[in-house]
Amino acid sequence: MITGLSHVSIAVPSLAGAAERLKELYGLAAGEAVVNEEQGIRLAYVDLGNARIELMEPARPDSSISKFLEHHPAGGIHHFCLNVDGLVPAAAAITAKGARVLGAAGETRNVHGELIAFVHPKDFLGALVELEERSA
Amino acid sequence: MITGLSHVSIAVPSLAGAAERLKELYGLAAGEAVVNEEQGIRLAYVDLGNARIELMEPARPDSSISKFLEHHPAGGIHHFCLNVDGLVPAAAAITAKGARVLGAAGETRNVHGELIAFVHPKDFLGALVELEERSA
Repeated sequence: MITGLSHVSIAVPSLAGAAERLKELYGLAAGEAVVNEEQGIRLAYVDLGNARIELMEPARPDSSISKFLEHHPAGGIHHFCLNVDGLVPAAAAITAKGARVLGAAGETRNVHGELIAFVHPKDFLGALVELEERSA
Repeated sequence: MITGLSHVSIAVPSLAGAAERLKELYGLAAGEAVVNEEQGIRLAYVDLGNARIELMEPARPDSSISKFLEHHPAGGIHHFCLNVDGLVPAAAAITAKGARVLGAAGETRNVHGELIAFVHPKDFLGALVELEERSA
């Protein structure tokens, strides 16, 4: 079901500022910023070879990460994302075992068009975990 | 300098309980538990192929994660870890640019004997980041 670790996602107050800081201190380059209209976030990825860091900033005041940033104004780790071979079957399998999948699995896609879903933190050891369908 | 994403680390109140939950819900298997005496934590890894999830529980009341668990009693994402090709040169390079490396780089090793260091969250977008030296 789970095939790998896709990315660690960091919410930041400024995407441009974060990208500049990672470049300056660590030599890490963020890719082009794109907007996820549904979640109201602007995001960019830092490719680490085997996995990625996702950087997210709010694209509007009521974005899905605005509340998180109120509690962590300088930014912080928001979630991490696991790859699954099939999003709808994976969501059905864990739901059948009592885990809560947030939203309707099969209806939400990321900016790359891949099916995604979030698992309730109470059902993943207190961690917010995204599941992302990707072909190997 | 940075060569990949090593692991995402989750602090949990019970390592055995966490391993059982991940197995039951997600089919993920944790490896054998080992103790890091210096940090006072017992830990185990879940291998995801390209990277790992680290599970940590306190091995004594004054462990390095006891305070975190007071604030997150059900567990939560504690840090993530990046691989570097050389720990001492990497720490020196980022220190020279003003980032704070916690502790003396070159003196701390993980349970596998690899050199590690932590970067202050204020110098990594609010995220606690571990650097781990590993040959490719």
